[in-house]
Amino acid sequence: MTTDATTELEQLVRERAEAVRRQDEDALLRREHPDVLSFPVLPPAVSRGREGTAQAMRAWFDSYAEGPGYEVHEVWVEAEGDLGCVSFHYHVTGTLHTGGEVDMWVRVTLVCRRTDGTWQVVHAHESVPFDPATGQALLSEGPNTV
Amino acid sequence: MTTDATTELEQLVRERAEAVRRQDEDALLRREHPDVLSFPVLPPAVSRGREGTAQAMRAWFDSYAEGPGYEVHEVWVEAEGDLGCVSFHYHVTGTLHTGGEVDMWVRVTLVCRRTDGTWQVVHAHESVPFDPATGQALLSEGPNTV
Repeated sequence: MTTDATTELEQLVRERAEAVRRQDEDALLRREHPDVLSFPVLPPAVSRGREGTAQAMRAWFDSYAEGPGYEVHEVWVEAEGDLGCVSFHYHVTGTLHTGGEVDMWVRVTLVCRRTDGTWQVVHAHESVPFDPATGQALLSEGPNTV
Repeated sequence: MTTDATTELEQLVRERAEAVRRQDEDALLRREHPDVLSFPVLPPAVSRGREGTAQAMRAWFDSYAEGPGYEVHEVWVEAEGDLGCVSFHYHVTGTLHTGGEVDMWVRVTLVCRRTDGTWQVVHAHESVPFDPATGQALLSEGPNTV
């Protein structure tokens, strides 16, 4: 593991969380590779390219009347050379325009590439598990639930 | 990207699919790092260590009266040196002992480390998206659904 890469990727996660909290789309999209392959927590199952991420992000921010709050937990990093992998959990909270209260834990895996000293996300996977008995997504399963 | 690493990781995915189809737990577990960090499609949200993976795998295989069928689609690989990242979708089919029919698409991201020439999974993330309107997991969303 390259120590400076690990430090830079931990910083990428911190900056991502801060950018979500201030709804800074430009800062978030600068970190997305133009050809990013995304597996989002909400449909579609697959999104290819930064434009898809931008649209989903705008819709996500627009759905909140208050928030989203976004706290990162349990950051894990593996890196070698200019390839880095990060996983973490985020706890997202807030109030939707529909009146719904959000209080949800999401699992994240990011694959990142460093080009000219800048890391970008080339693959993102965000999800929650689901209960096979009911088919319901499980929104309250944090990293220390079990 | 290291070409031989890419070829080896594509081979790892093919072998994984074949091992699932013949329910070869030993072959699957040899590819799991002892400290693997897993985000499975079914609870718990997080599993740490190969023993957790082994238990979940046994329970999964035991739930099937017929199957599981397991077909891999849309393999994507990034690698550098001894670090490799893979994503793909699998289509799982079969009949459960409960009588339920399974016909589901799952998204997978694997982070792998090569040690002494052998790749092992150090982080695995498997999921389906969910419908925020109903809270239901979406089991039929393949890579080409949209």
